[in-house]
Amino acid sequence: MNNQHQSLLDALNACIAACEWCATACLQEQDVKMMVSCISLDRDCADICALTARLVARGSVHGQHLLRECAEVCKACGDECAKHSHMQHCQECADACRRCEEACRAAI
Amino acid sequence: MNNQHQSLLDALNACIAACEWCATACLQEQDVKMMVSCISLDRDCADICALTARLVARGSVHGQHLLRECAEVCKACGDECAKHSHMQHCQECADACRRCEEACRAAI
Amino acid sequence: MNNQHQSLLDALNACIAACEWCATACLQEQDVKMMVSCISLDRDCADICALTARLVARGSVHGQHLLRECAEVCKACGDECAKHSHMQHCQECADACRRCEEACRAAI
Amino acid sequence: MNNQHQSLLDALNACIAACEWCATACLQEQDVKMMVSCISLDRDCADICALTARLVARGSVHGQHLLRECAEVCKACGDECAKHSHMQHCQECADACRRCEEACRAAI
Repeated sequence: MNNQHQSLLDALNACIAACEWCATACLQEQDVKMMVSCISLDRDCADICALTARLVARGSVHGQHLLRECAEVCKACGDECAKHSHMQHCQECADACRRCEEACRAAI
Repeated sequence: MNNQHQSLLDALNACIAACEWCATACLQEQDVKMMVSCISLDRDCADICALTARLVARGSVHGQHLLRECAEVCKACGDECAKHSHMQHCQECADACRRCEEACRAAI
Repeated sequence: MNNQHQSLLDALNACIAACEWCATACLQEQDVKMMVSCISLDRDCADICALTARLVARGSVHGQHLLRECAEVCKACGDECAKHSHMQHCQECADACRRCEEACRAAI
Repeated sequence: MNNQHQSLLDALNACIAACEWCATACLQEQDVKMMVSCISLDRDCADICALTARLVARGSVHGQHLLRECAEVCKACGDECAKHSHMQHCQECADACRRCEEACRAAI
């Protein structure tokens, strides 16, 4: 695997883990209702990044096809998480989503 | 879940199972080398259908976004399997891929 | 694929879809806080059923290995959903989880 | 996420990518037939590691439950890949599988 692929994979894997943890942590917040959009986007973002990572790792042309959609869900999730900047899990997730969005766009 | 979603989900799930089984059966063929494209497409098609099914089942807008790519990989996989029409697993997979492609296009 | 495998796959796929929809519907409930355990179990149950379905469909021995864990998460999720019997999504999810638990145990 | 989790996640993600790439590279070998067991184990190992990584990242108790099965499929896949030590993709996959097996056992 070349270096560009590895840095894309690293960004995807970091984003998956951040979204998974953010969803769990959001569910434990006192005001869960405020976190509903965040949890929903975390689910979708983690799943789409996970498929993209698998296809990129195997060198499939279909991984290439998913990069745009992956970048878009990362942007949506990152924007939502950024609204909750006082929560560490959301801030970390926003950062991971933005780095992943950039890595996807750089690979398109 | 409404009826249209259920019939899309049924087509996706049938396609996933057919692709998984086709890949396994292709690996057991005497002339594996002839089946390499088929196995590769089975992997990608099963994975993309699986993500699409999850997103559709949860009512996510991102499921809608994946339908076109899902239809395309179903078409590619179905076309490849159709070349091996004397093998039952490929014939069944070709049929499942075509029904899934149609179901995805009908839902776009 | 033989008939027993097909009925197990049907139960797994129905459970995945029910869990995905239940999580989405729980997030839309007025009192989300009451649904937190349900949402968490829906996530895990859908993911574990999805992997089990893939491995069973491909005829892998590792699918067999996952049946016990899959039955256990189905039981846990079904029990939690059954506590919310006045919500249709939870009732449907509880039913799907119980049928899936039985199908997994019958296949062990 | 604590440091132990991060190192387990890193090992799981490296193993997923190595298995995906190994399966693709095996399919491109001149003598594909010799690689059939390797390809089959790569598929199962990547899928089981991927689910384990998701559940560990979200802090689910069910991630803990999958560690033993995950370690076993990593051992099986690593042992098979180690038989093809003259192929770089198999050697890299064998190494990633063994590191992942150790990381899973250390976390049980």
